[in-house]
Amino acid sequence: MQKIVECVPNFSEGRDKKIIDAIFKSAQSVKSAKVFELEFNASHNRMLFTIVGEPEAVMNSVFESIKTATKLIDMNKHVGEHPRIGATDVVPFVPVSGVSMEECVELANKLGKKVGEELGIPVFLYEEAATKPENRNLADVRAGELESLRVKMKTPDYGPDKIHLSAGATVIGARKYLVAYNVNLDTADVQIAKDIAKKIREKDGGLKAVKALGFEVDGFAQVSMNLVDFEVTNFDEAYRAIETEANKLGIKIKSSEIYGMIPLESLVRAVKTTFKADNFKSDQILEKKLWE
Amino acid sequence: MQKIVECVPNFSEGRDKKIIDAIFKSAQSVKSAKVFELEFNASHNRMLFTIVGEPEAVMNSVFESIKTATKLIDMNKHVGEHPRIGATDVVPFVPVSGVSMEECVELANKLGKKVGEELGIPVFLYEEAATKPENRNLADVRAGELESLRVKMKTPDYGPDKIHLSAGATVIGARKYLVAYNVNLDTADVQIAKDIAKKIREKDGGLKAVKALGFEVDGFAQVSMNLVDFEVTNFDEAYRAIETEANKLGIKIKSSEIYGMIPLESLVRAVKTTFKADNFKSDQILEKKLWE
Repeated sequence: MQKIVECVPNFSEGRDKKIIDAIFKSAQSVKSAKVFELEFNASHNRMLFTIVGEPEAVMNSVFESIKTATKLIDMNKHVGEHPRIGATDVVPFVPVSGVSMEECVELANKLGKKVGEELGIPVFLYEEAATKPENRNLADVRAGELESLRVKMKTPDYGPDKIHLSAGATVIGARKYLVAYNVNLDTADVQIAKDIAKKIREKDGGLKAVKALGFEVDGFAQVSMNLVDFEVTNFDEAYRAIETEANKLGIKIKSSEIYGMIPLESLVRAVKTTFKADNFKSDQILEKKLWE
Repeated sequence: MQKIVECVPNFSEGRDKKIIDAIFKSAQSVKSAKVFELEFNASHNRMLFTIVGEPEAVMNSVFESIKTATKLIDMNKHVGEHPRIGATDVVPFVPVSGVSMEECVELANKLGKKVGEELGIPVFLYEEAATKPENRNLADVRAGELESLRVKMKTPDYGPDKIHLSAGATVIGARKYLVAYNVNLDTADVQIAKDIAKKIREKDGGLKAVKALGFEVDGFAQVSMNLVDFEVTNFDEAYRAIETEANKLGIKIKSSEIYGMIPLESLVRAVKTTFKADNFKSDQILEKKLWE
């Protein structure tokens, strides 16, 4: 089975198209990785894109883009709405297929060491790669932003004990794949979506690894979810849970929406569960034979 | 979108492992095609395997195997239970993704012309590639087998008007992908599987493009299906139809089984339909980005 990792690096530049392109193209210079979905936002003054491929290729690709960001972004001049601590702000590795979380944690460490030693940037490891409990949550690592590190530096996992003069600091880590999934109800009553979201989300005693909120979208009530671990709760289970709650109120599901990219394994699991096809495997997919 | 075609050539050799391997390896000599799932059966004295890849690669791969079969198989000595009219007996092209049925019909014609002209074998086009209504059904083309063509030759679509002395004749065509799908009922009463099979199959007024039979497998009643056009009736619809019929009798579905390979598109369609995710596309599958 081919090992596939995803990486979604975030950089503190969302205004200067020349710099944005230069960073994106640096990642693309590693031909064995696929680099796509460049997004940038001027008010956040921030950009991100997606890299997929085999672990080594993905690491080389993201390292090239970090080198360029280090050269071209000056954090002394950076302003933007989004919290950040460096030119390369946050770099998560995500297992997609044939790769364990442990391997992604190793990748984060390998990249962290390289960024620390070769580029002289202090690196904090977060989430699954965190070495300290207080660094697990990204928001905590980034609390006070670069400005607070200037006042009082924290001990990094790799690199020097002081911030890089122009590039600041960087957060690198490993996390699970996040599936964005929305279910639209056949009602305009947004309160119903809010109530159902509360019933099914983990925070309020619902499904594990599900974050959910109720919104109104195009005149319909929507339960909008982040499935933070589809191996724990997949989109099909979320759908059925919402359907059950909605049916209690005499309301039907109008439609649902998988937002953005999804790993093949999530689809395969949904088919297995929904159709009791316990022996079904992604290796039975014809295209996979050709692609791998 | 990458064009992917499948081809499943059947040859009249299922006993001599040297000949079987030589034919299989000839197909594999075209590196741009994937050749796999070699099966052979001594009593049928017949072999088959699967080729997937881009149209040109698949055609070149199957042509190499036909050349070898023509050299190594002598139909004057062939006996076996399975009906056949030649060393290369039947060659169907099947659209998998990004390819229309028309393109597969063209491929069948291109290969037919090559086999007729370069190898001197008469070729009959069947199913979607048939040029005469009486050649649509493979069983009709093969009626009486090679022996009847020896007595009274029919007019081929390509190649000479008489059978090849050692290789006989060949049937080439295009057809839809066939999904093999079984649903196991939580009962040992095989009659219930037979009754449900009758209710849901096209022949008896049930679901279009569904063939179904009832069997007993491992002590459970099984509805065994061939879905001959998953764009008309996909496995999820077949599952739901069987579930509805079984529930009427107070019986539950125990499990289901997708047998063998399945195109990604069938999975994507099942997810779209089952979860009302009308906008879901195979391009959202992360691995596809990397593979294509």
